[in-house]
Amino acid sequence: MGRRYTVISCDCHAGATYPEGGFLDYVGPAHRELLREEMIRVSERQRVLMERLFAREFMARQDGTEAATKGGRSGAWDPARRIKELEADGIVAEVIFPDGSQDNAPPFMASAGPGAVGADHALQSVGAAAYNRWLADFVGGTPGRHAGVALITIHDVQESVGQIRWAKEHGLRGVLLPAGVGDLPFYHHPRYEPIWQACEELELPLHTHVGSATPDYGDLPGSTTLFATESMWFSHRPFWFLVWGAVFERHPRLKMVFAEQGADWVPELLKLLDSMYRNMFRHEQQRLSLPPSEYWRRQCAVEAMFLTRREVDLRHEIGVENLLWGSDYPHYEGSWPNSARCIRDALDGVPEAEARAILGGNAARIYGFDLAELDPIAARIGPEVAAI
Amino acid sequence: MGRRYTVISCDCHAGATYPEGGFLDYVGPAHRELLREEMIRVSERQRVLMERLFAREFMARQDGTEAATKGGRSGAWDPARRIKELEADGIVAEVIFPDGSQDNAPPFMASAGPGAVGADHALQSVGAAAYNRWLADFVGGTPGRHAGVALITIHDVQESVGQIRWAKEHGLRGVLLPAGVGDLPFYHHPRYEPIWQACEELELPLHTHVGSATPDYGDLPGSTTLFATESMWFSHRPFWFLVWGAVFERHPRLKMVFAEQGADWVPELLKLLDSMYRNMFRHEQQRLSLPPSEYWRRQCAVEAMFLTRREVDLRHEIGVENLLWGSDYPHYEGSWPNSARCIRDALDGVPEAEARAILGGNAARIYGFDLAELDPIAARIGPEVAAI
Repeated sequence: MGRRYTVISCDCHAGATYPEGGFLDYVGPAHRELLREEMIRVSERQRVLMERLFAREFMARQDGTEAATKGGRSGAWDPARRIKELEADGIVAEVIFPDGSQDNAPPFMASAGPGAVGADHALQSVGAAAYNRWLADFVGGTPGRHAGVALITIHDVQESVGQIRWAKEHGLRGVLLPAGVGDLPFYHHPRYEPIWQACEELELPLHTHVGSATPDYGDLPGSTTLFATESMWFSHRPFWFLVWGAVFERHPRLKMVFAEQGADWVPELLKLLDSMYRNMFRHEQQRLSLPPSEYWRRQCAVEAMFLTRREVDLRHEIGVENLLWGSDYPHYEGSWPNSARCIRDALDGVPEAEARAILGGNAARIYGFDLAELDPIAARIGPEVAAI
Repeated sequence: MGRRYTVISCDCHAGATYPEGGFLDYVGPAHRELLREEMIRVSERQRVLMERLFAREFMARQDGTEAATKGGRSGAWDPARRIKELEADGIVAEVIFPDGSQDNAPPFMASAGPGAVGADHALQSVGAAAYNRWLADFVGGTPGRHAGVALITIHDVQESVGQIRWAKEHGLRGVLLPAGVGDLPFYHHPRYEPIWQACEELELPLHTHVGSATPDYGDLPGSTTLFATESMWFSHRPFWFLVWGAVFERHPRLKMVFAEQGADWVPELLKLLDSMYRNMFRHEQQRLSLPPSEYWRRQCAVEAMFLTRREVDLRHEIGVENLLWGSDYPHYEGSWPNSARCIRDALDGVPEAEARAILGGNAARIYGFDLAELDPIAARIGPEVAAI
């Protein structure tokens, strides 16, 4: 049998099942009834939203949708089913984000950011703690296969630091930064310094994920399409705040990953920022020792979902070491359960060493996955090198 | 003597001089003292801002800066000097926006949008009325040479409609829409319908202009660079709100111009929006009879400043009929006083008919300039066709 790729999906989702159990067991008695009520409301709202966001005809066209919907999404909260489905899709390990697009989102809008309409900051903190505890348990059985990304809230930065330290102590491997700040100052403000400091010190990569903390478009015709039009840009946005805010300069070991938000935007953006640094805004050279593209190379990575052929063709401009692959499991709109075909479409003809980096090597380096443990599993279930 | 191009600059700026006279004569006695105090504050603030935004070494490198600074900017309020300098630069007519980057901005932050920190909505309305009255007088002597763009405020939409009607009745030829809405609903909301209706009925093109109504980045290291990084995107933003909000669908004769905000973003954006319309968000086809790119072709135009060779090479994707040229007179960072050279760098080798459209024909059509009046002037002062 031929050699195989070790594939790590850097964009998967998980969350406890509703309406019973799940997160209810992870909040204290004081919040349990409130959460039960919220779960019923959210469940209905999510159903309506999803129907709008993904037109039926699109859903029906997706290969494998039927297989996926036949209980498939229960992999979001069932670890045994999850690992089986990941392996069947050729994936040996994964990075886990909250599940915002099903009815099992973190409690109390904890992943919706400080600007979310109707969010209560204190309850968001309760929800983040519940999600993080649940996630630590969820990945705790097979830590070598899952890197869980912790939720933080940012309205109280000392609390954020506590959340980050808790995450590290309980085996979580990254931190999800709300992409939007609501009425709080943007990320170039010194108030966030303790967050950057803690993530650098504890070697927990920061993340933004598409769809988190975009503005509220109201319940109007076109609103969901507007959300989809803008959500990627709002997820990229913290990058240039951390660049011009000198965060990457002050914290050279801080890492940041931009998840499920395309990758073709990176080359033009880096050209623009470098040109600003070298020409019209050269006074920034007094604060920043490197041009923006070098902070990107040194400290950032992007996971596109779907990774397209066009993005792979741009890999040297994005950085072969800065590009990650993800399946979006268990979401319908991702590559699951057809990841091998999607990988072939995107990476056909790419030199093996580069494909290895993009499909798993970069993820292993950033998240601390042990390839000595994963390669033998991949030798059994990974996509064959000769077939890509 | 060879044939010459009729060049219309679709991005120029004007505003009354401070600290005496000027706008003071255009507000009522009740607001005069308040405006005098503001003028002193603004003058100092703008000086600091400009020093930061344009690093000294960049200013010094710009060709013609010395000539420009030797009283050149007085063309912003001196109509005789203005027309002389425009003609010396090869330009026969112009579209005029407020001057936000000198100390002669419209009174009471009228052009800063409803979300501007420290802005008072009622005073912004006073300031918009003063600016519009001043502008109508400023262009009134030679209306065939200047198209003035009126300021509106949007916190009270009936008031906006009054401002739009006043502008039409007093010879102004366009409407500047705040690119950002502050805490108001976004532009897909039906509250704005009377604005779209009035602009379509009165044949006044809507505009966004770079730098208007971006978020407030505070007074922090990196803030001005962040402003420059994001200001173009925020100026583009109303386009997709008017598309997905079905504004272009309901108002097929409404025109919209995106001024001083690059043009290379247009092709990729149109591809993205069309792909959404044709695939994942095809339910929008029930509300929109055309794909987004066709609203663009039918109703929109972009003025890049500087227009680059790269953007000219994309002209068939942007639309030869949808591309305008501008000099940014009397701003230091524009092509003035070297417009002929900038035009040659950008348009060298482009077929004459296409260059004529981009340099002036499209502007004449959109703003109602009379080429029969302008061509004879251009025959004297325009750039020679053979030299481009």
